[in-house]
Amino acid sequence: MPGEGARTWLIPDAYLPSAGAGRVAGHEAICILNTGDQAARVEIDVYFEERDPHLGVAVTIGPRRTRHIRTDRPEMLGGLKIPRELPYAIRLRSDVPIVVQYSRLDVTQPNLALMTTLGFATA
Amino acid sequence: MPGEGARTWLIPDAYLPSAGAGRVAGHEAICILNTGDQAARVEIDVYFEERDPHLGVAVTIGPRRTRHIRTDRPEMLGGLKIPRELPYAIRLRSDVPIVVQYSRLDVTQPNLALMTTLGFATA
Amino acid sequence: MPGEGARTWLIPDAYLPSAGAGRVAGHEAICILNTGDQAARVEIDVYFEERDPHLGVAVTIGPRRTRHIRTDRPEMLGGLKIPRELPYAIRLRSDVPIVVQYSRLDVTQPNLALMTTLGFATA
Amino acid sequence: MPGEGARTWLIPDAYLPSAGAGRVAGHEAICILNTGDQAARVEIDVYFEERDPHLGVAVTIGPRRTRHIRTDRPEMLGGLKIPRELPYAIRLRSDVPIVVQYSRLDVTQPNLALMTTLGFATA
Repeated sequence: MPGEGARTWLIPDAYLPSAGAGRVAGHEAICILNTGDQAARVEIDVYFEERDPHLGVAVTIGPRRTRHIRTDRPEMLGGLKIPRELPYAIRLRSDVPIVVQYSRLDVTQPNLALMTTLGFATA
Repeated sequence: MPGEGARTWLIPDAYLPSAGAGRVAGHEAICILNTGDQAARVEIDVYFEERDPHLGVAVTIGPRRTRHIRTDRPEMLGGLKIPRELPYAIRLRSDVPIVVQYSRLDVTQPNLALMTTLGFATA
Repeated sequence: MPGEGARTWLIPDAYLPSAGAGRVAGHEAICILNTGDQAARVEIDVYFEERDPHLGVAVTIGPRRTRHIRTDRPEMLGGLKIPRELPYAIRLRSDVPIVVQYSRLDVTQPNLALMTTLGFATA
Repeated sequence: MPGEGARTWLIPDAYLPSAGAGRVAGHEAICILNTGDQAARVEIDVYFEERDPHLGVAVTIGPRRTRHIRTDRPEMLGGLKIPRELPYAIRLRSDVPIVVQYSRLDVTQPNLALMTTLGFATA
């Protein structure tokens, strides 16, 4: 049975903040939920302000699983190293319906700040 | 009269943070609004990264009522104990239309951080 | 010309936090945008966990205007006094299309925390 | 090929906070993603509570590019100077589909606070 959601998701405000010096490193998470009973094959495209996008980072989310992808961990993004403190944007395209939420944790000051939103779903 | 909203809601980025040591404990809330004139019977499914989901936690929201479910209170989740500091995701399915919003309060540092989003609505 | 948006909006997670002791008082804002060329007559309903809703608070937003309603100011809610530190929820119904966003500023600790989301639009 | 998204976007809760005195100035960002292969010509309208809107600020986002517009930088808004600490609202209209997310960083207290949401998409 296919899961709920959509196949294309867009996140205009991505930004990997400074890691900071505290117990928790500043980071972003691209959180994917696959409620279906087959694996979701997802391609992630990364858009910039001043250069061409980096296309086609492949990730897989198992059936009935969630995956919270940390953008500061290249091993979770097929080796792609996201630069810190640079505005960018994200597109995800999946072969099956998924749901995508984006969150950021900033520790530029001693106390953390959080923000989150669903991605924009289409198709 | 049925209420407004949708029957299925999805929240990919759930995470019960450390309780911390301050006056306010770190927590999440799954906030449900039932504007209809009959009770909403809701089943909550919890998805993980590395194991099979926990399905079918039953909660009821009365007619013309809201319910803010704290995920750190097993008595509000049919006894289910959500582990702290573990990424997970949530699906809610209701027999009548409802609206669902997810919020998190993090007190890992001395000052709290907040985030919120609507769930993704479908069906 | 009618404005953009929808006529019914729902916000499940409303909560007026402690005012705190700092320069900025803890508060919520229900932010309405009316891009049309006639006034929007809006009725606000307030839902609780343990008692019947308070229905029909009337507010008006002029044509091509925004209004950021502070829930801690009864004079902006037809005299309705929202209790602090009590979970509640909000419905807005308008005679013309509007757009509604909800934000909260919490100063329970010395440093403020912020969260925001669009309302859920229907009809 | 046209990009994903919608042509009209609305943000009811805009507010440019105090710049503060820390390393990071309090600010807002209107973040636009254009995944299509032609430039997006966008007009931004700014709505107020007590006066007529300021219409038609023109910005362009190149094909396959993102742009994070800081509202405290008039040079990114065709010279328009947004007043600080005044509630307002934003409409964006594009000639091609785009996706729009709004974020705010508040440093009124020593530690920053963050909030974000997608705009409301229509047409």
